[in-house]
Amino acid sequence: MCQLFSMSSQAAATITFSFTGFSERGGRTADHPDGWGIAFYEGAGCRVFHDDQPACSSTLATYIRTTPIKSNIAIAHVRKATQGPTAVANCHPFQREWRGQPWVFAHNGDLRDWRAPLSGPYHPVGTTDSEHAFCWLMQELNARFPMHLPTPSFEEMATHLSTLAAEIATHGNFNFVLSNGDTLFAHCSSTLYMLARSYPFPVATLKDCDLRVDLGPLNATTDKMVFIATEPLTTNESWTALRTGEFLAIQGGAIRMRTHHPQTKAFPVACGLS
Amino acid sequence: MCQLFSMSSQAAATITFSFTGFSERGGRTADHPDGWGIAFYEGAGCRVFHDDQPACSSTLATYIRTTPIKSNIAIAHVRKATQGPTAVANCHPFQREWRGQPWVFAHNGDLRDWRAPLSGPYHPVGTTDSEHAFCWLMQELNARFPMHLPTPSFEEMATHLSTLAAEIATHGNFNFVLSNGDTLFAHCSSTLYMLARSYPFPVATLKDCDLRVDLGPLNATTDKMVFIATEPLTTNESWTALRTGEFLAIQGGAIRMRTHHPQTKAFPVACGLS
Repeated sequence: MCQLFSMSSQAAATITFSFTGFSERGGRTADHPDGWGIAFYEGAGCRVFHDDQPACSSTLATYIRTTPIKSNIAIAHVRKATQGPTAVANCHPFQREWRGQPWVFAHNGDLRDWRAPLSGPYHPVGTTDSEHAFCWLMQELNARFPMHLPTPSFEEMATHLSTLAAEIATHGNFNFVLSNGDTLFAHCSSTLYMLARSYPFPVATLKDCDLRVDLGPLNATTDKMVFIATEPLTTNESWTALRTGEFLAIQGGAIRMRTHHPQTKAFPVACGLS
Repeated sequence: MCQLFSMSSQAAATITFSFTGFSERGGRTADHPDGWGIAFYEGAGCRVFHDDQPACSSTLATYIRTTPIKSNIAIAHVRKATQGPTAVANCHPFQREWRGQPWVFAHNGDLRDWRAPLSGPYHPVGTTDSEHAFCWLMQELNARFPMHLPTPSFEEMATHLSTLAAEIATHGNFNFVLSNGDTLFAHCSSTLYMLARSYPFPVATLKDCDLRVDLGPLNATTDKMVFIATEPLTTNESWTALRTGEFLAIQGGAIRMRTHHPQTKAFPVACGLS
């Protein structure tokens, strides 16, 4: 399985601590060695870093682990190739622009043979089921909220996205995180955990490497953030599992909208597939 | 003025040598300290690195200078902010997807008050004239070659792009490089130089720092590449100035098409503008 990690924070924050643990899953503590990527929203812009090397040994991942990039929303992914070879074009997160915002998407799951019909302005560069599904999501957002109409609210976008996510999730596991820089959207098909952090900040212990950090001095008492990950990243905090069919819209480190499609089901993970 | 640098190479090649000199212009040997970026095409994919720090001192630029990333087409830019503040969203190269290919664009010039009407699927994330013009180029490509028709040849794309470039160039200096990973397109409004390198490869001396490298052992006798830059990067090679109105289509380190719009004129560079 691929793995996801993302953060929404009220104040721009660095994720070097979390990424230090998460990137170990890219070939060392877990078998996801087929490339990785991370997106940082910075102001209106977004920087996406990709590498087709294992995250645990990539020199670019070392740069990210040691460089404090402040962001309100970050999305990271380590890949276990299931559909599409190991290549830069197949590294998540994928990025497209809609309505002058950079949209970023990362997926954990497997949509098997399903490919939605693409007739809009978005087409995959690589060969993953994930990028194809992302293009369809963007196409359908664009169709539902065409440019001659006012920009939809995040609630309107979330409502439509949750319906689209439930539709795709009938074809396979569709755990994903998606953002436009304002809102972090997350959908759980089979496995996704959430953690809310706020004052008082703990001394957090990473699960994937021998590192404990006292987060108190690193944060203001008013700071708060929400983390989403395929598996908990720390061992001494209360990560909660999302339910199958849950869809979240998160802004500024707080959940703003939470819906549930009870008909969504988790698919069994076939051997060698994610 | 901003500065551009790009390479098209027959065999995938690194540009650490050239970028070592070019990045000095981001705040040390020239006054372009307001961010930088570089795009590397790798297979079907493309990696774009951005930083809003000066290229001469950016730790990410150090990573690029010291990491041999092999690419057939690379595009780099150092920025002197004229329209839009220093920000990640305003760093070139800009990127959009069209027909399943990642298109990348970097501009040197100033289009003053001109903003083309955007009614298609591409809209700027930042506030530069450059990204706006890029969105219009992509919109017009998409309008001329709609998705229900076969993918146009590079000659068809080049012919249309050269006409669009000439149209934009009536509003201000529009020196740019643009690529889809297959072809490197370049347009000269006021200042752009070209260098073709092939066997026998020289001992090249950078203009911007004290570095000489014997390129012979680093290249095969069959290798060839074309470089485009705002100013020559080396002091002992024959860089040739493109003419105002020239448009090139370059593939695999060779010029495949060359057109000239004699009516295009260079605009005087206003003090403080690029």
